Amino acid sequence: MDIDVSRPILARNEELAEINRERLARSGAFALDVLASPGAGKTTAILATIAALRDRYRIAVIEGDIASKVDAEKVKAHGIPAVQINTGGACHLEADMISRAFDAIPLDELDLVIIENVGNLVCPTEFDLGQGARIVVLSVPEGHDKPLKYPGIFAMAEAVLLNKMDTMHVFDFDIEEFTDSVRRVNGRAPIFQMSAKTGEGIAEWAEWLAARIESAKA
Amino acid sequence: MDIDVSRPILARNEELAEINRERLARSGAFALDVLASPGAGKTTAILATIAALRDRYRIAVIEGDIASKVDAEKVKAHGIPAVQINTGGACHLEADMISRAFDAIPLDELDLVIIENVGNLVCPTEFDLGQGARIVVLSVPEGHDKPLKYPGIFAMAEAVLLNKMDTMHVFDFDIEEFTDSVRRVNGRAPIFQMSAKTGEGIAEWAEWLAARIESAKA
Repeated sequence: MDIDVSRPILARNEELAEINRERLARSGAFALDVLASPGAGKTTAILATIAALRDRYRIAVIEGDIASKVDAEKVKAHGIPAVQINTGGACHLEADMISRAFDAIPLDELDLVIIENVGNLVCPTEFDLGQGARIVVLSVPEGHDKPLKYPGIFAMAEAVLLNKMDTMHVFDFDIEEFTDSVRRVNGRAPIFQMSAKTGEGIAEWAEWLAARIESAKA
Repeated sequence: MDIDVSRPILARNEELAEINRERLARSGAFALDVLASPGAGKTTAILATIAALRDRYRIAVIEGDIASKVDAEKVKAHGIPAVQINTGGACHLEADMISRAFDAIPLDELDLVIIENVGNLVCPTEFDLGQGARIVVLSVPEGHDKPLKYPGIFAMAEAVLLNKMDTMHVFDFDIEEFTDSVRRVNGRAPIFQMSAKTGEGIAEWAEWLAARIESAKA
């Protein structure tokens, strides 16, 4: 006998994600779900993105972590509204957590809500949050073989950010193999080579995101 | 109403883990469960550990991944028996997968079975495999704040391997803050600073592991 306990939980999440999506559509805000493994540089990439777009758009951040408030504090230190969600052990954010976070930010006054998911290349893929787009950040130190090992997350990403390009000289990272392995599961997502630390490649990625924000308003 | 669907699954896993533990005790083999996020260098650390201990001990490796066989192939290329488990989406290994992997290796003739868990700092912590010890590998590029964000895995680790020490000059990694944050959740685990790539610190870690292998035989 097989009992799939995950089905009712996921169905309920889908309903709540749909409500989040409608709420975003009404407000005209675009929500970006940022996925990555721990230490890929999500928070630094988010801060670099904010720096590139804050003059044009009103931005808030929802930070997801198992525990701690360090990321929300980092974002707030830059004068950007941030809500910290602590999942208390869960390896992903869920739609109801985002719904409660939306209550805590002025959604109608925002253009962009950046959601930093829990650091994990597996669990978050199953949980729709109602976001406008999902992206995955991989960092050079993690190695070029990751799309082969975690195909699900690379298959669903609408853009791939290859971060920490400034450390390329220290690691044996094969860009061609990486691109090939992304392309094996995902034919369309652009791959942005960047360094959130040095600012390299941020402008190209920010322009892609700006185009998505504009489509959400149209 | 709260329904905790995870309880029966975990209870069944505990039973199977106990059977694995008894099987290991009968054979005199020590099983090491290696936990880390993707790209921390688990496979390279395992290969360096094998190089340090293969003259003294008979070793096999169980490789856990969502998909792909690249890690088992890397290990086999060094002449060490390896079994690849593909979890087909699950973010952790479970005791029944290990039980089946034990069937595929000559357990009675082994001293050490190294289990490379799925790259994930969250899910594997809940699933006992029957192992003799669990360790966590964190790499310098991931950042010193990870024990605060993923306290569960650092709390249960019997040793912490801080890998990629050779890249310290490229990252803003604060060893003191890292040690403090490990100590906040784990008062006893030794922290081994190492580089699986250069071999730095491997000998100290290998001696700790050898002592555990010897205890399992005693």
